[in-house]
Amino acid sequence: MDCNMEPGDGVSSATPTEEMNGAGNLMDFLDEPFPDVGTYEDFHTIDWLREKSRDTDRHRKITSKSKESFWELIKSLLDAWSGWVVMLLIGLLSGTLAGVIDLAVDWMTDLKEGVCLTAFYYSHEQCCWTSNETTFDDRDKCPQWQKWAELMTGHAEGAGPYVLNYFLYVLWALLFSFLAVSLVRVFAPYACGSGIPEVSEALPTGHAALQQGPTAVFVLQIKTILSGFIIRGYLGKWTLLIKTVTLVLAVSSGLSLGKEGPLVHVACCCGNLFCSLFSKYSKNEGKRREVLSAAAAAGVSVAFGAPIGGVLFSLEEVSYYFPLKTLWRSFFAALVAAFTLRSINPFGNSRLVLFYVEYHTPWYMAELVPFILLGVFGGLWGALFIRANIAWCRRRKTTLLGKYPVLEVIAVTGLTAVLAFPNPYTRRSTSELISELFNDCGALESSQLCDYINNPNMSRPVDDIPDRPAGPGVYNALWQLALALVFKIVITIFTFGMKIPSGLFIPSMAVGAIAGRIVGIAVEQMAYHHHDWIIFKNWCRPGADCVTPGLYAMVGAAACLGGVTRMTVSLVVIMFELTGGLEYIVPLMAAAVTSKWVADAFGKEGIYESHIQLNGYPYLDVRDEFTHRTLATDVMRPRRNDPPLAVLTQDSTTVEDVEALIKDTDYNGFPVVMSRESERLIGFVQRRDLTLAIKNARQKQDGVVSSSVVYFTEDAPQLPASDPQPLKLRRVLNLSPFTVTDHTPMETVVDIFRKLGLRQCLVTRSGRLLGIITKKDVLRHMAQMMNQDPESIMFN
Amino acid sequence: MDCNMEPGDGVSSATPTEEMNGAGNLMDFLDEPFPDVGTYEDFHTIDWLREKSRDTDRHRKITSKSKESFWELIKSLLDAWSGWVVMLLIGLLSGTLAGVIDLAVDWMTDLKEGVCLTAFYYSHEQCCWTSNETTFDDRDKCPQWQKWAELMTGHAEGAGPYVLNYFLYVLWALLFSFLAVSLVRVFAPYACGSGIPEVSEALPTGHAALQQGPTAVFVLQIKTILSGFIIRGYLGKWTLLIKTVTLVLAVSSGLSLGKEGPLVHVACCCGNLFCSLFSKYSKNEGKRREVLSAAAAAGVSVAFGAPIGGVLFSLEEVSYYFPLKTLWRSFFAALVAAFTLRSINPFGNSRLVLFYVEYHTPWYMAELVPFILLGVFGGLWGALFIRANIAWCRRRKTTLLGKYPVLEVIAVTGLTAVLAFPNPYTRRSTSELISELFNDCGALESSQLCDYINNPNMSRPVDDIPDRPAGPGVYNALWQLALALVFKIVITIFTFGMKIPSGLFIPSMAVGAIAGRIVGIAVEQMAYHHHDWIIFKNWCRPGADCVTPGLYAMVGAAACLGGVTRMTVSLVVIMFELTGGLEYIVPLMAAAVTSKWVADAFGKEGIYESHIQLNGYPYLDVRDEFTHRTLATDVMRPRRNDPPLAVLTQDSTTVEDVEALIKDTDYNGFPVVMSRESERLIGFVQRRDLTLAIKNARQKQDGVVSSSVVYFTEDAPQLPASDPQPLKLRRVLNLSPFTVTDHTPMETVVDIFRKLGLRQCLVTRSGRLLGIITKKDVLRHMAQMMNQDPESIMFN
Repeated sequence: MDCNMEPGDGVSSATPTEEMNGAGNLMDFLDEPFPDVGTYEDFHTIDWLREKSRDTDRHRKITSKSKESFWELIKSLLDAWSGWVVMLLIGLLSGTLAGVIDLAVDWMTDLKEGVCLTAFYYSHEQCCWTSNETTFDDRDKCPQWQKWAELMTGHAEGAGPYVLNYFLYVLWALLFSFLAVSLVRVFAPYACGSGIPEVSEALPTGHAALQQGPTAVFVLQIKTILSGFIIRGYLGKWTLLIKTVTLVLAVSSGLSLGKEGPLVHVACCCGNLFCSLFSKYSKNEGKRREVLSAAAAAGVSVAFGAPIGGVLFSLEEVSYYFPLKTLWRSFFAALVAAFTLRSINPFGNSRLVLFYVEYHTPWYMAELVPFILLGVFGGLWGALFIRANIAWCRRRKTTLLGKYPVLEVIAVTGLTAVLAFPNPYTRRSTSELISELFNDCGALESSQLCDYINNPNMSRPVDDIPDRPAGPGVYNALWQLALALVFKIVITIFTFGMKIPSGLFIPSMAVGAIAGRIVGIAVEQMAYHHHDWIIFKNWCRPGADCVTPGLYAMVGAAACLGGVTRMTVSLVVIMFELTGGLEYIVPLMAAAVTSKWVADAFGKEGIYESHIQLNGYPYLDVRDEFTHRTLATDVMRPRRNDPPLAVLTQDSTTVEDVEALIKDTDYNGFPVVMSRESERLIGFVQRRDLTLAIKNARQKQDGVVSSSVVYFTEDAPQLPASDPQPLKLRRVLNLSPFTVTDHTPMETVVDIFRKLGLRQCLVTRSGRLLGIITKKDVLRHMAQMMNQDPESIMFN
Repeated sequence: MDCNMEPGDGVSSATPTEEMNGAGNLMDFLDEPFPDVGTYEDFHTIDWLREKSRDTDRHRKITSKSKESFWELIKSLLDAWSGWVVMLLIGLLSGTLAGVIDLAVDWMTDLKEGVCLTAFYYSHEQCCWTSNETTFDDRDKCPQWQKWAELMTGHAEGAGPYVLNYFLYVLWALLFSFLAVSLVRVFAPYACGSGIPEVSEALPTGHAALQQGPTAVFVLQIKTILSGFIIRGYLGKWTLLIKTVTLVLAVSSGLSLGKEGPLVHVACCCGNLFCSLFSKYSKNEGKRREVLSAAAAAGVSVAFGAPIGGVLFSLEEVSYYFPLKTLWRSFFAALVAAFTLRSINPFGNSRLVLFYVEYHTPWYMAELVPFILLGVFGGLWGALFIRANIAWCRRRKTTLLGKYPVLEVIAVTGLTAVLAFPNPYTRRSTSELISELFNDCGALESSQLCDYINNPNMSRPVDDIPDRPAGPGVYNALWQLALALVFKIVITIFTFGMKIPSGLFIPSMAVGAIAGRIVGIAVEQMAYHHHDWIIFKNWCRPGADCVTPGLYAMVGAAACLGGVTRMTVSLVVIMFELTGGLEYIVPLMAAAVTSKWVADAFGKEGIYESHIQLNGYPYLDVRDEFTHRTLATDVMRPRRNDPPLAVLTQDSTTVEDVEALIKDTDYNGFPVVMSRESERLIGFVQRRDLTLAIKNARQKQDGVVSSSVVYFTEDAPQLPASDPQPLKLRRVLNLSPFTVTDHTPMETVVDIFRKLGLRQCLVTRSGRLLGIITKKDVLRHMAQMMNQDPESIMFN
C-alpha cells in the first residue's frame, strides 16, 4: 500500500506485547540447545546489558580456547580483527556507492536537458571536458552537447525549441520520479523517506501513537534502530539495492530533495550487510549497532566529504550507548569511505568535498550583524518548515491524499518541473546551484551572478578583485533568486515525507544559500555605494574587496541547516571541513547558534525528533532533560485500579497455570516471587524463554504433564512418586533483574533506562515487589510531563 | 616537602573512610537549614546522581519562581545564560593566558642567548622584525640583537665568546629552573606535574595504593577530578597564578618539557575560578565538572590552536559523564579561546596553530612503508618511555632522590643545558626545532637542513623544487639530529615527573619529528640516487619532487605522541588541524594506529593511565573492559570471615547506639534495615548527614537524650510520657539506595558504577541485605582481575 508495513505483511507475527524480556545473565541458559533463544522478535527493543554480557561470554570462550591450539589462536586473532575488516569493507562499499550515485545523478540530471553526442553516458560536464574554449560559459556550449530540441529539430534558439525542451524536461522528470516511486512501492517499503526519520502514515498525534504500542509503529529509522529497536529488513540487501537506485532517480527528477540523508541509510545497509559475514556481529544485536553507528559516520563522510564531521555527527545524532568505544572504528570507516570516494573522483576536482570554496578576503566584525540576521532567518525557516511539514504529513495521513502516494509524487514532480524550468536557478540541480552561490566571483567567472561593472582602468588580477557596482546581470539574478527562494521554501515542505528517498540537507542549504547570497550582494552594493557610512567607514575603503557574497551564502546555508536539524557542533565541523579553514568558523558558528536559538524558541525539537514523535518511535533521546518531581511509584504498573501484576511463584505454579498465564496475557516477561503472600522478588523470566522451555520439556522430558509443578528454586523437593514429575526452570530465570525502590525519583529512573539501555525495571519496597516500569512506560510518562509543562524544557 | 600534601597540611582532616554516602533524593532534607549538608569532604568522590537531582531541583525552583514576577523571570533567564557566560570568560582568560605565556617563553628562551638592544623585552624574532635583510639567515643576525659575549666583550666569534655564551646559557637555565621549582615548593604543591597526571611520590605498587584508601592518595589530577573526586585547592587561584609563572620559567629553562599539558591545567583553573561567580556551578560539584570539562577543551584548543581537536580530546580523554551535553559549550569555549589567542598573535604569523605547514607534493602509496615503520618506532618509544619513566618515578619515591626535589631539578637542568648548548638542534627551544623539522625546504630556506646541491641549470621556482642530492650541511645536520634524538629520548625520561610543570606533548613530538626527518632525508636521497629501483620507479621520475622530509617529521611526531598518550582520534584531528588539510590524514592515521598497536602490545596503558595507577587514583576508566565471570557476591563486603555489616534498624536503635557506631567505624554511610532479624533493606543514611542531624537535635530539640530511640519510619509511635522523646530522622534517610542482587555479574556492576557515577551499591537477595560494594571495591577487584589474567585484555 505504502511505505508502511501492513499488519499481515509477513512480520505481523510480532505480537503487540509490552517489552518485558528479562535482563542479565542468561549465560547458563544460552548453552542449552533450544533454538532461537536469546534472539528478539521484530519490533521489539533489545536489552543492552544482556547483549553486552553475551558478547563478553563469547569473547571469554574464544580467549580461553585460543590457548589450546595454534589454530584456535589464529581464529581468536581473526575474531579480534574482524571489527576492522568490517569497517574497511563498509568504507570501501559506501564510498563506491556514493561515487556511483554521484556519477549517475550527474548524468541523469543532464539527460533532462540534452544528450552528449560523443557518448550518451557522458554528463554535460564530462562531454565538454575536452573542449578548448577558455571561459566556462563558452565551454558549457560545446558542440558535442546538444539539447533535445536542437537534436530533434536542428534549431537551438526560439520559442519552438524552448517549448520542446520545456516539455521534455518535465517528461523526463515525471518518468524518473514515477520509476522511483514505483520501485519503492513494489519492492521495498522501507526504502522511502530520508532514512534518518521515516515519514510514515502519521497518527493523529505522536502521544497517541506512543500509547498504542508497537503495532502502531510501522516504519522506524536508524536512530531508533541504533537505540535498540529491531526492524527486520529495514537495513537489508533489498533495501540497499532499491534505495540506491531510487535515490538516483529521485534526485535526478529535480525534486527539491537531496541525497545526503538517504546516503546515510545506504551506508547503514552496507554496515548491516557486512555484519552478516561475522557471527560476532550478526548474532549480537548490541555489537551490530556498534557497526551501524560507524556506518552512519561513513555515510555522512561520503555525503559531505567530511570524515571528522561524520564521526561527530554519529556521536551527536545517532549514537547511543557507545560514544567512545566505536569512535576509533567510526573514524577509520569514515576515512576509508572518503578516500574511496575521492579515488572515484565524481566531481572531477580531486577534492573530497561537495562544495569546495576558497575566499580571498577575511571577514570583518561588522559583518556579524548580517550573519546573525541570516541566523535568525535560518531559525525562522527551520521552525516554519518543521511546523508546516509535520502539519502536511498529518494531513496526508488523515485525508485521501495518503491513499495515493504515487499520484502525489507525480503531481509534486510535475509541479516542480513546470515551475523550475523557466528559472535558470531552479532548473539546474540543487547541488550545482549551491556550488555557484558559494563561489566567489573570480576574474574568469562568467556567470550572471558575477556580472559586475568593471573599472576600465583595472588590470585584471586573478584574485582579490575590489568591490564593484553590480551590472544588469546581477540585478536580474537577484530577481530570479528571490523567486527561486519562495519556490524552494514552499515546494520543500510538500516534498519531504513523500514515498521516495528524500534528504533534507541539500534543499535546506539551498534555501539558506539563496537568502545568504541575496543579503551578501545587498551588503556589498551598500558598502560600495555608501562607503562613507559610519559602519562601512572603518573596514571598507573604496577600491578594496570588503564583502564576499559567497561567504554570506555559506553562512545562510549553515543557518538554515541548523534551524532544521539543530545538529549544531557536527554541523559547524562539516561546514569547516567544507571550506577547509578555521578562518570562517566564527561567522558559521554565530549563524548556526542564532538559528538554533531562534528555532528552539518555537519548539525544542529538530525535524528528526519531530518525525520520531509524530510516529511514536520508542526512542529515548539522550538530550531531553527530565526535570519533574514524579517518583517511580507514580509511573509503575499496575496502577491503582488495575488488576494485580501477573507474577509466577517460585515453587507453587503448575505448568498448566504458566501456560494459561502465557495465553491470557501478552507481556514479554514475568517476575518470579517467593510466594504470593510475601511477594519477595526472586527473579524475572522472559515469556519467550518460558514458552520455549515448556515446549521443549513437554516434548523431551518424561513425566512433565499439565499438573507438574514448575520450580524456580535451586533444588526441587523430593516428591512422592505418585505426584507428576516437577519441571525445574531455574536456568531460564534471570536472577539479577534490575530493581529500583518506589521512592526513586523518575529523573533517576530515566537516567538508568537511558544509560544502561534497559527494557524494564522492577519496582520494590524493602524487597517486596510492587510493580514494573517498562521503557514504554517511561516514554509515555515523559511525553505526558512535557505536555503538561512545556515551558520547563525551555531553560535547559 | 614536595609536590604532595603531607598529612597535617590542612586537609588531613579528611578521614580515610570508605565512600558510602547515600545516593538519591535528599530534596526534602536539603530544604532544612543544616549547614554543610550536601557538600563533600576533601578527597572524597561525589555522587553524580545526587548532584544531578540537586541541580534539577534548583532549576525547578527557579522555573516556578520565574512565573511570579518579571524580576524573577529575568533572574531565571540570567541563570539559563550563565553557562554561556562562564564559557565566554573561560575562553577569553585562557586564550589571554596562553598568549602571554607564549610571549614570555619566547622572550626568556632568547634571553639565555642574548638581548635586544632596541628594547630588552623583545625576543630575537621581534627584535629583528624590522630588519631589511632578505634571507631568514641574515635576518637572524640583525645588529640590534646581540649575544651576551658580544655585548660584554665586543667579540662575537672565537673560543672565548663561545665559552662565555655557553656559561651564561647554563646559568640562565639554572636560574629559571631554580625559580620555578622554588615557587612550586613554597607556594603551590599542586602546581607541579603536567596537570594531566600528577606524578607524586609513587607508592610501591599501584594496586597497593588502591588498597590503602584515600589518605594514601595525595595528588590527583584533572582526569580524576572530572570523574568526581574532590581535591580542594588543586584548581584554585593560587595554583593558577603559580602554575602560569612556573610554566614560563620551566619551559624557558630549556628542559625537555612542553607547555601543552600544564596549559590544560591552567585552563581548568580558569574554569574553576569562574565557577565561583555563579552559585549554579560553585554549589554543585557535578555542574562544576561540566564546566571543567569544557575548560579542558579550551586548554587543548589554545595549546595547539586546534578547537575541534580540543573538543574531541575532552571527549576522549577527560570527560566522564557528559559527553553530549557539554559538547556545544566546550566547542564555544574552545573557539573563543582560540580566537583570543589569535588576536594576541604570539607567533606573529596570524595563524592559530603552533606549527603551520604547507607541503607542495602529495604522498605516494609506497611511502606508507616508511610511515608505518615510523609508527613502529613511535610505539616502541612510547612503550619504552612509559616503562622507564614509571620505573624512575618509583625509584624517586623509594630512594633518597625523592627527598631533594629542588636539587633534582637543578641537576637535570644543568645536565640538559650543558649537553644541549653545543648542538644547534637542542640549543634552541623545542617548539622551534619541531617547526624547522616540519618545514618543507622552499627556495628561500637557508637552514642547514635545506643545504641541497642545486642543479645550476635550474631556474629557481618558488615551490615544487625537484629532489636534489644532499649537500654537506644536510649530512652534518643528520649527525647532529641523531645525537639530539638520543639526548632527547634519555633526558625526557628523567624530566617528566619532576616537581615543576612539565608537559609531555612537545618532547614526544620532538623525538618523533627528529626520527621522522632523518628517515625522510634517507628516503629522499635513496629515491634521488636510485630512482631505477623498482619501488621508486613508479612514483619518482628523475627531476620530480617525490619526497617531502617535513611530512616524515610530522608523521613521526604523530606516531611518538600516539605511542605515549594513545589518544588516537583526537590526536589525528589535532594533527589535521595543525596541517589544515585532509591530504595527509592517511599517513598520519597509519602511523598513529601502528604506534598505538605496537605500544599496546607492551602494555595497554597510556602514560596518563600508568601514572593514575601508579598513584592509585580512584579512577574508573571508561575504556577498560571488564570481562570476567565474577558475581557481585564475590566482591561485596563483608567477606566470609569479616564481622557483619554495620547497619541501623528503622525503629530500635537509640541515639547512643548511633553515636557509638559513628565513633567506632569510619564508614561514610550505613544501610537501614527493618529489623536485625529480617534484614530487609529500607534505605541508606550518610554518616555526615547523620552526625549533623543528631548534633542539631541535641542542641535544639528538647527531650532528645542518649536513650532516645531513633526512628526512620514514617510515623513514630505514641510513646508513654516517661520514655524519652523519640528522634525522627526519616528526612535524612535516602529511600532509594541503589541495589543489585548477589547474582548480578560484576561486568554489569562495573557498567552501572561507570555509567551512573555511583559511590556505592547495596547487595540484596530477595529483599534481604547481604552486603555493600563501593567504588573502591570495584576498582580493587578490577585491578586484581587484570593482574590475574593480563592476556584477556589484549583482545578487546
